[in-house]
Amino acid sequence: MTAVNDRTTTRSANDNAELTDEDIFRAHEGGKLSVAPTTPLADPRDLSIAYTPGVAKVSRAIAGDETLAARYTWTQQLVAVVSDGTAVLGLGDIGPRASLPVMEGKSALFKAFAGLDSIPLVLDTTNVDEIVETLVRLRPSFGAVNLEDVAAPRCFELESRLIEALDCPVMHDDQHGTAVVVLAALRNACKVVGRELGSLRVVISGAGAAGVACAKILHTAGVGEIIVADSRGVIHSGRDNLTPIKSELVETTNARGVTGGIADALQGADVLIGVSAGQIPEELVETMADDAIVFALSNPDPEIHPDVAGKHAAVVATGRSDFPNQINNVLAFPGIFQGALQAESRMITDRMKVAAAEAIAAVASDELSVDRIVPSPLDPRVAPAVTAAVAEAARDDGVATV
Amino acid sequence: MTAVNDRTTTRSANDNAELTDEDIFRAHEGGKLSVAPTTPLADPRDLSIAYTPGVAKVSRAIAGDETLAARYTWTQQLVAVVSDGTAVLGLGDIGPRASLPVMEGKSALFKAFAGLDSIPLVLDTTNVDEIVETLVRLRPSFGAVNLEDVAAPRCFELESRLIEALDCPVMHDDQHGTAVVVLAALRNACKVVGRELGSLRVVISGAGAAGVACAKILHTAGVGEIIVADSRGVIHSGRDNLTPIKSELVETTNARGVTGGIADALQGADVLIGVSAGQIPEELVETMADDAIVFALSNPDPEIHPDVAGKHAAVVATGRSDFPNQINNVLAFPGIFQGALQAESRMITDRMKVAAAEAIAAVASDELSVDRIVPSPLDPRVAPAVTAAVAEAARDDGVATV
Repeated sequence: MTAVNDRTTTRSANDNAELTDEDIFRAHEGGKLSVAPTTPLADPRDLSIAYTPGVAKVSRAIAGDETLAARYTWTQQLVAVVSDGTAVLGLGDIGPRASLPVMEGKSALFKAFAGLDSIPLVLDTTNVDEIVETLVRLRPSFGAVNLEDVAAPRCFELESRLIEALDCPVMHDDQHGTAVVVLAALRNACKVVGRELGSLRVVISGAGAAGVACAKILHTAGVGEIIVADSRGVIHSGRDNLTPIKSELVETTNARGVTGGIADALQGADVLIGVSAGQIPEELVETMADDAIVFALSNPDPEIHPDVAGKHAAVVATGRSDFPNQINNVLAFPGIFQGALQAESRMITDRMKVAAAEAIAAVASDELSVDRIVPSPLDPRVAPAVTAAVAEAARDDGVATV
Repeated sequence: MTAVNDRTTTRSANDNAELTDEDIFRAHEGGKLSVAPTTPLADPRDLSIAYTPGVAKVSRAIAGDETLAARYTWTQQLVAVVSDGTAVLGLGDIGPRASLPVMEGKSALFKAFAGLDSIPLVLDTTNVDEIVETLVRLRPSFGAVNLEDVAAPRCFELESRLIEALDCPVMHDDQHGTAVVVLAALRNACKVVGRELGSLRVVISGAGAAGVACAKILHTAGVGEIIVADSRGVIHSGRDNLTPIKSELVETTNARGVTGGIADALQGADVLIGVSAGQIPEELVETMADDAIVFALSNPDPEIHPDVAGKHAAVVATGRSDFPNQINNVLAFPGIFQGALQAESRMITDRMKVAAAEAIAAVASDELSVDRIVPSPLDPRVAPAVTAAVAEAARDDGVATV
């Protein structure tokens, strides 16, 4: 599912023409991040406070009580943005060095949207054991891990192994960032068309990182029926050679036991969530129920053009900034990590993700319409609202420390 | 040799009284570093340049030619400050979490003195194999490694293993930063007393990280005689149970085969370099040659009080900011790493270290005196001079890429 992710500031090929290569490469010259001291270092007294001999008192205090590291180091506001470069944008497995500009951009977004510090760590290994081992060794250096652009299905095992191994928030954003914003958008779309989540029949096209996470969060949120289709068709209990993660999906989706292809699934469905690189023909959308909802999130080319989908659906969203209803992960991840870190949460629970979705949906609820089911990615109210909701959910779930 | 290092802004116990605990802890609240974007992220166009779709062009370019990572990521200005927390300040083995405030301070100094970005990476392992493996996996994330506060003798093996494993500059600052500034100071002390390095008899008290590195660089620089003493006395070929690094020292030091203790070594010596936590009695300094040079670098308590040493020596230096001639690593490491990175050097060679020492010495040469053999640690001329000299030496040595 490398084609679907949070890079939803994408413009169409024509729009891109306004960005010259010179504009782009010049902006990336020397990288996009800088590390600066937050304490003055101008005179000997400053040095004596920030470095020796002053720092020895702080180090000694932490040696005596390691929980003080959360207060007297930057770790409690520091996210490690970790990738092995195997599923980068739509470019696929381009390796860690080539993925670094994307991870630097992600770190820049963490700062711009939530004030969080972060460091990109790109790894020259794709071995799950080795990645887990590396981050366990580095654990005292950061406060949370944002996994990024790791290929499916390895990303599922890697994320769950890291959650088990590390006593801090870990989230693969290509999975859950997308899922959180999809849930937010679906809640508001339901309001617009007068439906409830519990009565919806939802079809997810794509069973990669984003598709699997969408299925999980929609199940958690109480969506009535979820059917997932991959390139081989609908996922059902009769299919052989299912990966472990798809076998898990069978437990919570497709209770009716639909078989066949995406066409069979879409017949009479209320919602289509496209998170694949594939195309969905207009004739199939036409077979969906009245007041259908279509999220065609593949980038840069949606599964169906939003204008075409709009002929048959009541609400349409894409991942693109040049159409209404942009499903953009940047609505979710800055506040999710900021909320988890502020609560000094041990992990990011399902309830925290659902709370993030509700907070995003609530920001847009003041002027809801078919063309505005999610806030703008640049809306400054979003990250603080998500932060507060996620921290509260962490406390409700008993995973917060403060 | 954890008592000797670059934390030479140390003040005496009395001077410290002016820094209250409140001053210190408040300055360290939330840590001492911040990561900020260097490109604007204010509107959709900014996002399209810094993130998608623009960043895809940069990633694709690097995927096609990995050398472009030096130009279009921040790695070529990024130092990883790496520690396992086993020899932190005078505090010893306090662990990675408690060492982090020191590493943050080091990163702050890199920025303040050389404009370099850096990230502290503190490791929850003291196993040399594991540390090397971890940094090899992280190699695409940074441009150089500053090893810090790793206990001797493990630091020697770790540094040489990392130099072999990584195609980038690696330096254990507790060794070579100290050694470079000692050589700079010794060059200028020689000028002040009218001596040449080649005719000097030098005694080094201490055979930890700093002592071993001082012996090496003074040998490289052509010092006539070097004798190293550790807690068991003078190191000579007849001693048994020498560690590998001390066995190496036997090859290049103590050609006369002096045996016995520090008293035997100091008899008639021209230079004493104290890099241990021990004390040197006044009576021993009294036995040194005329116009003796004494560097008593132990912190916070010099091996001999500088006023006492000054009764018998022509030039005295310490690690402290409250006496003349402060030997402070901050004179060396920012420019050494900046020079190595600017030249895109594969490593830091002996010639680069000697060039750094000469550049530091040259900055102080305009107004040389017994009380001014090194520049002030805050002298803004130092880092640029060291940077230029180190980059040129890298090119001369054939290890530079640009």
